[in-house]
Amino acid sequence: MLIDFSEKNLPQVEKEMLEYIEKNTLSNSLKESMSYSVTAGGKRLRPLIVLAVADAFQQKLTTPFYQVAASLEMVHTYSLIHDDLPAMDNDDLRRGKPTNHKIYGEALAILAGDGLLTLAFQLLSEVNLASTEKLLLLQLLTKASGTSGMVSGQVGDTEAEGKVVSLAELQQIHSEKTGALLTYAFMAGGILAQQTPEVLDILQRLGEHIGLAFQIRDDLLDVIGTTEDLGKNVHQDQKLAKSTYPNLLGLNGAKEALKNELKTAEKVIQTLASEPNFNGSVLNEIVALLKLEEV
Amino acid sequence: MLIDFSEKNLPQVEKEMLEYIEKNTLSNSLKESMSYSVTAGGKRLRPLIVLAVADAFQQKLTTPFYQVAASLEMVHTYSLIHDDLPAMDNDDLRRGKPTNHKIYGEALAILAGDGLLTLAFQLLSEVNLASTEKLLLLQLLTKASGTSGMVSGQVGDTEAEGKVVSLAELQQIHSEKTGALLTYAFMAGGILAQQTPEVLDILQRLGEHIGLAFQIRDDLLDVIGTTEDLGKNVHQDQKLAKSTYPNLLGLNGAKEALKNELKTAEKVIQTLASEPNFNGSVLNEIVALLKLEEV
Repeated sequence: MLIDFSEKNLPQVEKEMLEYIEKNTLSNSLKESMSYSVTAGGKRLRPLIVLAVADAFQQKLTTPFYQVAASLEMVHTYSLIHDDLPAMDNDDLRRGKPTNHKIYGEALAILAGDGLLTLAFQLLSEVNLASTEKLLLLQLLTKASGTSGMVSGQVGDTEAEGKVVSLAELQQIHSEKTGALLTYAFMAGGILAQQTPEVLDILQRLGEHIGLAFQIRDDLLDVIGTTEDLGKNVHQDQKLAKSTYPNLLGLNGAKEALKNELKTAEKVIQTLASEPNFNGSVLNEIVALLKLEEV
Repeated sequence: MLIDFSEKNLPQVEKEMLEYIEKNTLSNSLKESMSYSVTAGGKRLRPLIVLAVADAFQQKLTTPFYQVAASLEMVHTYSLIHDDLPAMDNDDLRRGKPTNHKIYGEALAILAGDGLLTLAFQLLSEVNLASTEKLLLLQLLTKASGTSGMVSGQVGDTEAEGKVVSLAELQQIHSEKTGALLTYAFMAGGILAQQTPEVLDILQRLGEHIGLAFQIRDDLLDVIGTTEDLGKNVHQDQKLAKSTYPNLLGLNGAKEALKNELKTAEKVIQTLASEPNFNGSVLNEIVALLKLEEV
């Protein structure tokens, strides 16, 4: 069961993040600011995927697995801190709490982001895995989070504000902004489970569909969700005049597109069923988590 | 001669940076903003040190050497872009040109910094070196540039504004803020030249003295230099009420401290003379470059 799996494993990920920050940060205020955002909760979807994929291939989850998951969540957390800055999305609420710069000021928020990003790669470079696995993870994570992934998507997102973009452009922005890191999560789990390049390709495809579903759902929730349920301000896309899936496809069209992506994701998981020792049940539950009725 | 060495080798470093940005960045405006700061000149002291140390041990400088030097300069450039932001030092002039955010706006400047930092680690993870060397460089660079190095020093520097700090505190801030990355430059050169841990220790010591000298000199120039000569605004420390070496030691005391650090650095270079195939002449010229009369 996903809920048992999460309750058992996600606290380990948070523990690895906090311990690594504690051990490797000289400035106390920097430590406090980074720890604040790292413990602010959230769904922990990315580390959950890393661990669930490894678990699906019957891996025993040991410290290096949690550390790889922790380094990914640190990258995700840095991106949220920077995205929320006044010069970017100017958000004051995140996961039901004031955003980092509302508490610590802009300078420390920028540096907390820089610090978490650098610490993520430091942790990954030190983790107790074979050199080739470690370097492959570093190559994929820097690519997914950097200028051919998340950072580029964030630029595209900013530039699209107030403009009408096509569905193809919107998908490109989101595949960079959120899809790349989610896809990395699936592949990292497969690499930790020492899977073949063929299986890694399938996991990559799974990640791409989940990434797209995630973004369509996020856009839908901004329209139909509440601040109370989501822990962040809603109707932000409208405020910033952003193009979204509900804009381009209509509310029902966007709901349909979400369903299609999730259905495809389930099919991709089925193709893995023939792999030795594969059990897709927790992965199927993660897909189900993204269905709209689950909000 | 240092001047010949620089003219021959530094263009290769810039070429590696620009090519890597070009090849690995999806967003055009992001590419432009990063390339702007990367080509804005500067002394290129850090990549120069990497290459000069490797050259002092008679290494033939090939593409991986230039790429390691380029990844370090990308980290340095990111730190300048973020330091200049309105929420940080709020500088509008850098190397005689408008700072990144003055041209591209704050959002793109933040993302250009994030992008360069991530690309630096991406480049280092992909460089054509043995896995163990590559991982050691990644471990040292993330540490030197992150929360036990540069990022932490930047926090300390911000917090020291308007306060009187002791000489010991000032040295701690600067050993993190500028010393760590300069020290990495010396060690990276030694690692590329496959030197023993003993030699790497000596190079580390050399880096620490050079780092301290560099900062004392920087503080002195802010008092006695001109904007025209330096390409950046002077008297900024006074404006931000920062503690500096001239504040704490007086102008002559700071000049004396600078001389002492450089004299020690020269002695450390002499201890390397007994190593096989070592030629310290370009390194001595780098030390001489930091003497005040050279400004």
